[in-house]
Amino acid sequence: MARPREFDPEDALDKAMHQFWAKGYYDTSIRDLIDRTGVNYYGLYGTFKNKRGLFLASLDHYRAMVTSEVVKSLSKPGPVQRVIARTFDRLLDLTHTPDGRVGCLMCNSAVEVAPHDTEVADKVREHSDLLTKAFRTRLAEARDVGELSEDKDVKALAEFLATTAYSAGLLSRAGFDRKRVKRHIKTALSTLV
Amino acid sequence: MARPREFDPEDALDKAMHQFWAKGYYDTSIRDLIDRTGVNYYGLYGTFKNKRGLFLASLDHYRAMVTSEVVKSLSKPGPVQRVIARTFDRLLDLTHTPDGRVGCLMCNSAVEVAPHDTEVADKVREHSDLLTKAFRTRLAEARDVGELSEDKDVKALAEFLATTAYSAGLLSRAGFDRKRVKRHIKTALSTLV
Repeated sequence: MARPREFDPEDALDKAMHQFWAKGYYDTSIRDLIDRTGVNYYGLYGTFKNKRGLFLASLDHYRAMVTSEVVKSLSKPGPVQRVIARTFDRLLDLTHTPDGRVGCLMCNSAVEVAPHDTEVADKVREHSDLLTKAFRTRLAEARDVGELSEDKDVKALAEFLATTAYSAGLLSRAGFDRKRVKRHIKTALSTLV
Repeated sequence: MARPREFDPEDALDKAMHQFWAKGYYDTSIRDLIDRTGVNYYGLYGTFKNKRGLFLASLDHYRAMVTSEVVKSLSKPGPVQRVIARTFDRLLDLTHTPDGRVGCLMCNSAVEVAPHDTEVADKVREHSDLLTKAFRTRLAEARDVGELSEDKDVKALAEFLATTAYSAGLLSRAGFDRKRVKRHIKTALSTLV
């Protein structure tokens, strides 16, 4: 057995996440992961156990890097409409990496892996719950200060906006141009008025 | 070489489509397709060339079976809100097959295959265009008879509703319960009011 090469697990994980994000779970081979991370088989699997282990860790890494940035963006000061519109702008930026229009890793995994893997389904659900909670908090604040009409259903709107984040990722990944995705978001945000 | 078994290509295609719909493209093996269709390797590949050929034919079959049913449902008589709500109800039924909550094959393929295969991307786009066109026709009629306010942007709303069809498939596949998906659709339809 070859001696494991020394490597930075955090850096390898970040590269593996981008690999899964761009190419999906099933179509990513061990060879792809080795090439992308520059870490050999024994190094990668000694740390992450197997391809699935590396994928689960990638979802956690995505939550720490991407989901948390979106959540943070929603707590910025400013009029609710503008804060949410800017959050979607940032989210749209995040669907584009040097690999191209990769969409949202959680949305991709919701479609590709979650139906066959309950642990992945749980992580996808946690991501969605985090977004929903952040939208809900922001909308409730807006209602409290009179920015949002009293008759709005904050819970339903928060869920709706979290799903709109998925839709934006999906459209972007499927190759719809940014203008088209922005029109979708604009119509979705009209539910707040 | 074994003599190709006699089989009904339409029946085999329908079964292959359900296999891809449930399990996705990359994770479906040749063995899965043989088991599902009951047709041997030479029979399947003699007719459909290879796995990708069978997948492309499955997308066409889906369009003929599922997309066209959704499009037809939008042209039914009745108040626009009710016709569209019923179409989404039917669409939601269609995301559930004996294989479980499989979502929408076009939405699944938009995420999984379209980014790496322009022919698949074209078929996904055609599906979306057909839905958008059908929504647009129905909404324009509604505006003409005064059911929809004059200031509504029919083009943007039609695109938005076609994307909402994708979202509904995505949520269903990701394991969100029917009530949650219906709440999403209800909020989306509030854009028509």
